[in-house]
Amino acid sequence: MTRIVGSSGADLFNEAVIRDLSDTEARRALVHKWGQVPEDVLPAWVAEMDYALAPAVADAVAEAVAAGMTGYPSFEPGGGALGRAYAGFAARHFGWRVDPTQVLPTVDVTAGVRLAIDVLSGPGAVVLPLPAYAPQLGLPEVCGRERWDLPVEPDAERVTIDLDRLDRMFADGASTLLLTQPHNPCGQVYTRAELEGVRDVVTRHGGRVVSDEIHAPLVLPGAEHVPYLSLEGAGEHAVAVVAASKTFNTAGLRCAQVVVDDPATAARLAGVPIARNDSWSPLGEVAAVAAYEQGDAWLAALLERLDGQRTLLGALLAEHLPRARMRPLEATYLAWLDLRAYGHDDPAAIALERGRVRVAPGHDYHPGLAGHVRLNIATSPERLREIVRRLATALG
Amino acid sequence: MTRIVGSSGADLFNEAVIRDLSDTEARRALVHKWGQVPEDVLPAWVAEMDYALAPAVADAVAEAVAAGMTGYPSFEPGGGALGRAYAGFAARHFGWRVDPTQVLPTVDVTAGVRLAIDVLSGPGAVVLPLPAYAPQLGLPEVCGRERWDLPVEPDAERVTIDLDRLDRMFADGASTLLLTQPHNPCGQVYTRAELEGVRDVVTRHGGRVVSDEIHAPLVLPGAEHVPYLSLEGAGEHAVAVVAASKTFNTAGLRCAQVVVDDPATAARLAGVPIARNDSWSPLGEVAAVAAYEQGDAWLAALLERLDGQRTLLGALLAEHLPRARMRPLEATYLAWLDLRAYGHDDPAAIALERGRVRVAPGHDYHPGLAGHVRLNIATSPERLREIVRRLATALG
Ligand SMILES: Cc1ncc(COP(=O)(O)O)c(C=O)c1O
Ligand SMILES: Cc1ncc(COP(=O)(O)O)c(C=O)c1O
Repeated sequence: MTRIVGSSGADLFNEAVIRDLSDTEARRALVHKWGQVPEDVLPAWVAEMDYALAPAVADAVAEAVAAGMTGYPSFEPGGGALGRAYAGFAARHFGWRVDPTQVLPTVDVTAGVRLAIDVLSGPGAVVLPLPAYAPQLGLPEVCGRERWDLPVEPDAERVTIDLDRLDRMFADGASTLLLTQPHNPCGQVYTRAELEGVRDVVTRHGGRVVSDEIHAPLVLPGAEHVPYLSLEGAGEHAVAVVAASKTFNTAGLRCAQVVVDDPATAARLAGVPIARNDSWSPLGEVAAVAAYEQGDAWLAALLERLDGQRTLLGALLAEHLPRARMRPLEATYLAWLDLRAYGHDDPAAIALERGRVRVAPGHDYHPGLAGHVRLNIATSPERLREIVRRLATALG
Repeated sequence: MTRIVGSSGADLFNEAVIRDLSDTEARRALVHKWGQVPEDVLPAWVAEMDYALAPAVADAVAEAVAAGMTGYPSFEPGGGALGRAYAGFAARHFGWRVDPTQVLPTVDVTAGVRLAIDVLSGPGAVVLPLPAYAPQLGLPEVCGRERWDLPVEPDAERVTIDLDRLDRMFADGASTLLLTQPHNPCGQVYTRAELEGVRDVVTRHGGRVVSDEIHAPLVLPGAEHVPYLSLEGAGEHAVAVVAASKTFNTAGLRCAQVVVDDPATAARLAGVPIARNDSWSPLGEVAAVAAYEQGDAWLAALLERLDGQRTLLGALLAEHLPRARMRPLEATYLAWLDLRAYGHDDPAAIALERGRVRVAPGHDYHPGLAGHVRLNIATSPERLREIVRRLATALG
């Protein structure tokens, strides 16, 4: 096979290879995931991947730093290069037509959700399906709104949104549904029919939806991501918050995007006082543009790797933790494990103490829910084997 | 003179040299200041410097990027390396004892001010001395509070805070004073006596102060920065928001610090929901630590350069714009020019149109105030000459 070498000297061949970080490299690169655990603990908690950056992204950021691009971002009005890059990505990957001028940068996804609620939503409660990405539990309070939980039955076959309860919540004065799709921590993709059901309820009540789609590029073979805004009529009541950061391991570079499908809404968001939304980094912008424009080959390799990891996880659980329950992992590199059969309230605490493996405790995502953990599979097969072995030893 | 070469191959000798960026370099590095003006316009508006990064800072960031440090920051509790680095800097430069465990990172200074008001202040109005850093004008609204302006007479000899009016405002229900010191856009340093006067008023009413001290390292020869928190008793009602970013040209790397002098206040700020304050970047943290720990020689060279630039500005104004008025520039690289004598409401617009030089319009900092501009002197002597010549041609 011929090696293809790019103009910057980067080995483009590597774009299609996922390189595992060594422990030493991971400790230096992932200062939260690896840096905040003792040396003898294997980290499988926060949503970061133990892989080297996509070369195109690494090169773009290194070049920007070498050029001294450490000042304010351009604040280019009307979407700019970032809007165009995201629109291209959305068309290729989701068959979704995004107006590049309606892509608004924001420092990160959580800040984008906050911005959308603060600026666009009425004062009513925010409906949060549970389990949910842990920091989202505090978001309604930050936005000065009540949080109304919409929990999923832990024994339910699928993670769905109970439309009757959602209907009652909007009837009772809720203003906003915070939708996370693909779902974290459950790794599930909502179907078009499920999303249309949500849309119909929200439309009936004049409510709003903020659709956190940070995990959209991480849909694994066999499933398909339906952008909420691609549904007929959704643009009138919804915005999506997206980012390249979770897929390309660049959460610390700080640039997410709020995507809008309604010019008046885009104008309202762009017209806020600068102090409300001016904190994204030009390096995050550079990384996002590189990821969206040049990241496809690397992303394909990543999805192949993650597909392999989920198969491996299935085999490892069958062997070492046969009483664990798990819905099919359709997206993300985060597995939601029901370990209630092992009889521990907080299996993550036991796993850390007895097994020296750090997984995320289920109650962070669903307060009051015992016996669950979230396990991050975005690592090497060897580490995943060791993670499950340690979990099994600790819980068994 | 011998050259001293560091282990990374960097020329340490350069730490004491301010290197001017060429126009081409500046356009690539400063994507806002230079990138958002037409090629024939000379930019002297937003607060960024046309200088290469301090080598120690550039090296630290480049090394972090090479190591793949693009994920979440460490969220190390209790100040960590950043707290220790800032405490060292504050002791050396301001003779101020900071408890490193009471230094809290935040994505930027504006976000730090917002956090402090949201979490610590009562619901009463925010008092804003005018002129003020433009984005601060929108901050009270973002925090859901009224803004009560405390304008400085344009003809006043010094920029002072009218203590009688401040007293009445707190008596009438204001909750917070947003103090910016050193002052932007006026480039003035408050004296200890002035600050003590403020403190006494605030203390009498049980109010709060947020002291934006981002420009503190930029105090020029002849003046002295008095940290507000270093005043007896101030820690009970105030926090400071600081950053290396304005001094070291790293605003886009995204890490500022809220400094507290009261354990209960520090605990309240650290205890907020994560969605309220989790957006700083590990690269911003790395840059800040490098700047605080290894930046002294470069900073000394910078202050020498800026001292020269202010002298040059004085000479240029005397020659080309003799009717311009300006208070002594004691700090920052931002000159506040009273150009009312030239008879234009918006001299910045005239300067852009007729002179192809972009300065910041005074009314952005003080709504309703005609005839003022803010001019950025952090460039080469040649460019500063050209900037003032163009201004004079346009206005004359
Ligand atoms: C659903 C979801 N939203 C948001 C985030 C965080 O994104 P950010 O760091 O950009 O706020 C995550 C991180 O894992 C997530 O899973
Ligand atoms: C007084 C003042 N505060 C804050 C800032 C902006 O800081 P940040 O970009 O960290 O919000 C500036 C920038 O010039 C400033 O002059």
